[in-house]
Amino acid sequence: MSSPLIQSLIEAFQVLPGVGPKSAQRMAFYLLERNRNGASRLADVLRDAVQNVGHCESCRTLTEEKVCQICASNHRDATLLCVVESPADIAVIEASGAFNGKYFVLMGHLSPIDGIGPAELGLELLEARLDKEPIQELIVATNPTVEGEATAHYIQQLADKYSVTVSRPAQGIPVGGELEYLDSSTLSQAFLSRKQLL
Amino acid sequence: MSSPLIQSLIEAFQVLPGVGPKSAQRMAFYLLERNRNGASRLADVLRDAVQNVGHCESCRTLTEEKVCQICASNHRDATLLCVVESPADIAVIEASGAFNGKYFVLMGHLSPIDGIGPAELGLELLEARLDKEPIQELIVATNPTVEGEATAHYIQQLADKYSVTVSRPAQGIPVGGELEYLDSSTLSQAFLSRKQLL
Repeated sequence: MSSPLIQSLIEAFQVLPGVGPKSAQRMAFYLLERNRNGASRLADVLRDAVQNVGHCESCRTLTEEKVCQICASNHRDATLLCVVESPADIAVIEASGAFNGKYFVLMGHLSPIDGIGPAELGLELLEARLDKEPIQELIVATNPTVEGEATAHYIQQLADKYSVTVSRPAQGIPVGGELEYLDSSTLSQAFLSRKQLL
Repeated sequence: MSSPLIQSLIEAFQVLPGVGPKSAQRMAFYLLERNRNGASRLADVLRDAVQNVGHCESCRTLTEEKVCQICASNHRDATLLCVVESPADIAVIEASGAFNGKYFVLMGHLSPIDGIGPAELGLELLEARLDKEPIQELIVATNPTVEGEATAHYIQQLADKYSVTVSRPAQGIPVGGELEYLDSSTLSQAFLSRKQLL
C-alpha cells in the first residue's frame, strides 16, 4: 500500500463485525473516492456516540440519556417487563409491535467460564425493580440457546420471591417457514407445544 | 429505537458499501457494547484520512503526501508504467508481486453518459508523463469490461504519438479455476490466445 494513513484506515475498519481485510479496503477506498461527506459524518457520529452513549439507569440499554425513552415513557404498560440479552433484541421486538411493556437488558447471558455471573447482568437492579415497581408479568426473552435457557432458569428462580408471573415467548415453527427445512429440535418443540383448535 | 444518537450512528454506517440497515445496527451495537477503543480509533483515523488524503501529483492515486511512496521510490523501474482504474487495483497488483514499475491511476473509466471524459481521467497528465519520462512500455490494466476496453483503446491511440510499446495483461483461464465453471467469453478468449508449448 502506498499510503500509511490509508493502511491505518483499512486496519481500523476491521474492528467492525464481519469485516475482513478485503471489505475494509473496499470501504476505505469507496469513502475516500466517492463519499467524503458521508465519511466525515460517520467519524463525527461515531465519536459522539462513543463519548455520550452509556447505559439507561432503569433498564441498562444503551442510550445517551440517563433514562432511555422507553423507560421514561408514560404510554408503556408498566405491569409488563421483558428481559432481553441485548439492545438489538429491543430493536427487533419494537419493530414487531407485539409488545407495549417495558424492558430490562442483561447485556449478555450467564457464562461462568467468561466470568459473567448475576452481578455482571445487573440482576440486583432487576430484583430492585421487581420489588418496587407494579410489575405483574416478567417475560424472559433470552435467546433459546443453552446459555440463554440457563439464564432464563436463573431469572425464573430469582423471580419466585416476588408475586409475579414468569413467562417465555413460545417456541415453534416460524411463520412463513417450511417444515421440510426445519431443524428437528424446533420441530419437536412445536409438536410438544401444539395447540388445540377450537 | 430508544436512542436518537444510536439511530444516527446506524444511519451513518449505511454510507459504507454493502452495509444495509441490519448490518449497520449490528456494527453500532457491537462497537458500543464491546469495542469502544476500536470505535474511537476508527473515528479518529477516518477523520484524519478524510482531511489529509488527496491525490498523488504524479500518478493520481490516493495518498496523504504530495507524491505517493511508489512514485517517489528509486527502486521501481521507471521505464514501465501501468495504467489502472482505481487505487484498489494498485493494491492487488502490488500484492501479486508481478510488477515493479510505476503506476498511473485514472480514478474511473471513460463514461460519456456520466460526463467522464479524458480530462476527468487526467489523460493530459498521462501524456505529459509519456512525453517527459523515460517510459518504454505502457501496460493498460483497465478492467476487462466494455468501459474498461473502450478506455484502453482510447489510451492506446493517445500513446501512438509517443515512442512507447502499449500492452494489456493477458486474458484467459484463472489459475486454479475449473473449465467447467468458466464463462464462455473467457474460455473463447483463452482458446484464441492459446500458447504453443515448446
